[in-house]
Amino acid sequence: MALDTFNLRTPGPTPLPDPVLEALTSPMINHRGPEFKKLLDDTTDKLKQVFMTKEDVFILTASGTGALEASIVNTLSPGDKVIACSAGSFGDRYVEIAKTYGADVVEIICEWGDAISPDLIEQSIKENPDVKAVIITHNETSTGVTHDLEGICSAVKNNSEALILVDAVSSLGSVPLPVDGWGCDVVSTGSQKSFMIPPGLAFISFSERAWKAYETAKMPKSYFDLGAAKKSLEQGQTPWTPNISLFYALDVALDMMLAEGIENIFIRQSDVAEYTRQSMKDLGFKLLPSDERWASDTVTAVHIPDGLDSSKFMKTMKDSEKIVLAGGQGKLSGRIFRVGHLGAVVKEDIEEVVAAMKRILPELGHISG
Amino acid sequence: MALDTFNLRTPGPTPLPDPVLEALTSPMINHRGPEFKKLLDDTTDKLKQVFMTKEDVFILTASGTGALEASIVNTLSPGDKVIACSAGSFGDRYVEIAKTYGADVVEIICEWGDAISPDLIEQSIKENPDVKAVIITHNETSTGVTHDLEGICSAVKNNSEALILVDAVSSLGSVPLPVDGWGCDVVSTGSQKSFMIPPGLAFISFSERAWKAYETAKMPKSYFDLGAAKKSLEQGQTPWTPNISLFYALDVALDMMLAEGIENIFIRQSDVAEYTRQSMKDLGFKLLPSDERWASDTVTAVHIPDGLDSSKFMKTMKDSEKIVLAGGQGKLSGRIFRVGHLGAVVKEDIEEVVAAMKRILPELGHISG
Repeated sequence: MALDTFNLRTPGPTPLPDPVLEALTSPMINHRGPEFKKLLDDTTDKLKQVFMTKEDVFILTASGTGALEASIVNTLSPGDKVIACSAGSFGDRYVEIAKTYGADVVEIICEWGDAISPDLIEQSIKENPDVKAVIITHNETSTGVTHDLEGICSAVKNNSEALILVDAVSSLGSVPLPVDGWGCDVVSTGSQKSFMIPPGLAFISFSERAWKAYETAKMPKSYFDLGAAKKSLEQGQTPWTPNISLFYALDVALDMMLAEGIENIFIRQSDVAEYTRQSMKDLGFKLLPSDERWASDTVTAVHIPDGLDSSKFMKTMKDSEKIVLAGGQGKLSGRIFRVGHLGAVVKEDIEEVVAAMKRILPELGHISG
Repeated sequence: MALDTFNLRTPGPTPLPDPVLEALTSPMINHRGPEFKKLLDDTTDKLKQVFMTKEDVFILTASGTGALEASIVNTLSPGDKVIACSAGSFGDRYVEIAKTYGADVVEIICEWGDAISPDLIEQSIKENPDVKAVIITHNETSTGVTHDLEGICSAVKNNSEALILVDAVSSLGSVPLPVDGWGCDVVSTGSQKSFMIPPGLAFISFSERAWKAYETAKMPKSYFDLGAAKKSLEQGQTPWTPNISLFYALDVALDMMLAEGIENIFIRQSDVAEYTRQSMKDLGFKLLPSDERWASDTVTAVHIPDGLDSSKFMKTMKDSEKIVLAGGQGKLSGRIFRVGHLGAVVKEDIEEVVAAMKRILPELGHISG
């Protein structure tokens, strides 16, 4: 494939390290045989370390959105009341899934760029004592905001028995998320973010309390039925044919992550993010998050200032500088750009981005700093 | 990955040709950018040629079972009457999905190893004039039987307005299935069978009649909502993050298939299958299909004779001869073995299988011919 190689600075997919590329070319095996059983058992065990959980973790052949659907349909029945916190495109998507399957959704909506405070959740729970679950997007990829998940979990646990369902697609593995420690019941993520492998697998943790809910959950489910996944996992299998190539890649990527050390990854991510934010401000840009305390360590969202042509800026970065940034989504389209810095990212990757911007911004009419 | 390479003779996944392996290592790209749009448009167009359809075809990041679910939830409402033909494990799976989502399923069941006759379908349609859809497994992988889909389609069309939903996971691309020619409304298949790439993508065609049904279909759907897929495809995108690596692989695999010519693939498959069946009979085995007229050209199912230890046979083939066969599924477990011969298979691959069997069968107490 004659493809240019870009410095891919989208918040997923992220560039693939060489050992991952090599693993992708491993030969096909029988997914009902002992070799796949070992691969499934090994990757599941290592994933539990990254999830910091002793509960069940399942690997689904789907993108992260499939895991979000699984989190809803395996725990709830039509008519169940759900408190949902939406502060961006992905929060909206989670709400939409819950509504599609008949949940009675109480929406806490905030400005895109703001974070939802645990106090708001506490208030909503008190107003809705029959709430069955709280759903929350840990890191809102569309706005570059990381919610105070620890505080939200405390607010839920101190005031209810509600399940906590978390979209951690662009957070888990890059920023602290001790699944058991914070008492999250179902946590979903995807392969193409922190895990440095191509899209196509989703990972989902499922607590004892979630299994209790599963027993009475009446939303229909088949492909995403985690009961089937659990039964198959006990045999070292998946219920449906798994994406074997990505399991190979995941295995080596998890080895890389555990060798670096999860805590060290968090520090690296935090340092790179801090450098990114400071650099964007030095270039005269304004960050989208209304308070830097909740600015994401995996993706930085930046306002397009008046006078800078958004499409021309993104296109010049790509064509002249071989750097692919992400644009805004939904109502932020054309109003922001986003720099992804998760997965196998180091400070030098962002230094390249900054140097490129310094080269091209003057001719596009943007005056730095 | 230090993995032994086997002659993988399961009916999917199938061994990967070198150009496919190479394509898998192509770099990640932004799935919302122009490069992915081109990849999506190209693969979709080529898939339509293999499906022999001018209707819509969608590529889903899921295994084939996900497409089966999509075929049901996008066309039906709870309570809709469906005639389902089950003649093996995969027929049962399709029935199970339809029931899970609330379809009122009239089951036509036949012995595993037999084929369902178009006459039976015709009779059932006459008894159930309110039938909304007929679901059928074209090639039943668990028994090595290919149903007379052309005859079944005629029976349905001559007697009703029912939609025809086809599981073609282990048939499409290997045996004739002119989707428009036979009037199939929704046809599902998977990447790891005829398409010679790893598991993880599913392909599904969706006719104008199916879209008409979609408008009133009330089964809930989100990840597998083909309305969302259609809307995104018009923008050159997928609604959820796609498995980019497999799209690269699919693109080169489809080029290989179209270069060989679909009709030539059918002839190659038919020749290899005929050779496989004759060889198994020459070795003194009995085929599972009760009539060779409906024996599959993609997988041959063979009775384990009295006196031959099934596990020992499969294990010796694997350990001593590096050939992986498939066992029986469900109630056929331990009673049959299966030789997969689809994808990039040539006669020499099966000659190796036969030579290996000739070497090991005498010491396992099986007297050939």
